[in-house]
Amino acid sequence: MIIRIILLIALLLCISSSNSAENINESLYRIPNTDNLLYLELDIGLVIIELNPLFAPKHVTQIKKLTRTHFYDGLTFYRVIDGFVAQAGTSIDEDNGSQYFKITNKLLLLPIENQITNITNKAFSLVQSPDMFAAKTGFIAGFGSARNNDDSITWLTHCPGVIGMSRNNAPNTATTDFYIVIGQAPRYLDSIMTIFGRVVYGMDVVQKINRGNAKNNGVFDDANKTTTIKKISVASDIPKSEQLNIMIERTDTMSFKSKLSKRRKRPSPFFYKKPPQALDICQIPIETVVF
Amino acid sequence: MIIRIILLIALLLCISSSNSAENINESLYRIPNTDNLLYLELDIGLVIIELNPLFAPKHVTQIKKLTRTHFYDGLTFYRVIDGFVAQAGTSIDEDNGSQYFKITNKLLLLPIENQITNITNKAFSLVQSPDMFAAKTGFIAGFGSARNNDDSITWLTHCPGVIGMSRNNAPNTATTDFYIVIGQAPRYLDSIMTIFGRVVYGMDVVQKINRGNAKNNGVFDDANKTTTIKKISVASDIPKSEQLNIMIERTDTMSFKSKLSKRRKRPSPFFYKKPPQALDICQIPIETVVF
Repeated sequence: MIIRIILLIALLLCISSSNSAENINESLYRIPNTDNLLYLELDIGLVIIELNPLFAPKHVTQIKKLTRTHFYDGLTFYRVIDGFVAQAGTSIDEDNGSQYFKITNKLLLLPIENQITNITNKAFSLVQSPDMFAAKTGFIAGFGSARNNDDSITWLTHCPGVIGMSRNNAPNTATTDFYIVIGQAPRYLDSIMTIFGRVVYGMDVVQKINRGNAKNNGVFDDANKTTTIKKISVASDIPKSEQLNIMIERTDTMSFKSKLSKRRKRPSPFFYKKPPQALDICQIPIETVVF
Repeated sequence: MIIRIILLIALLLCISSSNSAENINESLYRIPNTDNLLYLELDIGLVIIELNPLFAPKHVTQIKKLTRTHFYDGLTFYRVIDGFVAQAGTSIDEDNGSQYFKITNKLLLLPIENQITNITNKAFSLVQSPDMFAAKTGFIAGFGSARNNDDSITWLTHCPGVIGMSRNNAPNTATTDFYIVIGQAPRYLDSIMTIFGRVVYGMDVVQKINRGNAKNNGVFDDANKTTTIKKISVASDIPKSEQLNIMIERTDTMSFKSKLSKRRKRPSPFFYKKPPQALDICQIPIETVVF
């Protein structure tokens, strides 16, 4: 509570001198752009997703467009495998019998946005090198990411809470259906799927989404058991008074980097024997504060 | 459904010639010993835990003893951090203000059982070498485990669903309270905690356990929000008619090993670009079948 109040004061100070980039850089939190936040209202509670137009501009544009036409309202999480993903949207491709959704509109076909090349080293807070699935991992504005050896390519990592677009076998076949990672990071999906956001609030709600039949690829035996999307909205379309004020821990500050270093070394006496000094990019919490 | 029936038939064939070790070895599933199964009945559903006396004999003995004295019945999950652990038992150590529980009875103090030395290579199904946190990882009777370079020491890995005993700073201070891993594997806890079992049924129920206040180390602001343990029982104490018949995928069969190899190579055309041939020990599902 005290910490919350201190943060609020720190934040208000930043806002009151909002044109000072220096102050904003020193802050340990950032207020996300409401035009890049989705409010995913489920029948079991609210989930907030931060979109990532840096890595997936076309997907973000499409998801916002679909959201604004109320495309998702009333649809369900129809394929949910505990420990893996919760997938929502229209339906699955019955012919295929697996995760691929029925393409409702060919015009919506999206090109895969699985990696970018224009990330400076400054924007990347190194976490681990080498990682088991990449030359290195690190954070970019709160998103877990990975890079190749010469830093020429960067992609987002499939950590719990990330949201990606489902697709058919061919890479450029995503249209409307999305999945949220709800279990141990399926890193083998890195850079072959498009991740376009991550849950920044309400991951406990996501974990309450009903699971389907794992033996039938997560599809429900009883369609009445699916969890329903009441509504998705772009936060900036919601009256200010109904928005939740959140701020998200920055991952590019000295403070965050020293937190990573402490996490690696585990100085607490609880670690009577020190673990290997390795960090899993998907096992580092990034704090969201409601103020 | 068809697979289930086939499995059931295969199983019945095994049982009908139940003294043939050969048949049992060839089966892809095993029926767990009900004396090593705990039925954890929560107010939100049933969870089944397989105990591991091979790695943690004293912990298993104590947990069964406490279970049979109804010690846990009516207690709650009082410290729950989404993406990390759900901890249950008596209470936390208020002085410490962190995860350590109040020691209710010093006589119960358990020695840490964090590694064993007597595992043959035959019992260990290799998954990955090197792994980010160990020289190698693999399965031992369905449990994720890790080893050092010369295979002289083996320990269990903190994968989602494992159950371990909470302790204070000193290693030999565990007594009654336990935690279930509910998020990305906290591998840094490997071999400094005692893992004594894993959830083999009802992980979706575990994920519905209410979360506490992450900013207060998972403790609840409102104690009424905690999820309650109605009852824990040793399965063999329950009338046969009330037991759930489960069988668990074996991890020492050729079939399982070829599944691992396929998982590593990802031959499906969905992988239009093949991922690195690495496997995360905590990202491999081990099937439980209800029959």
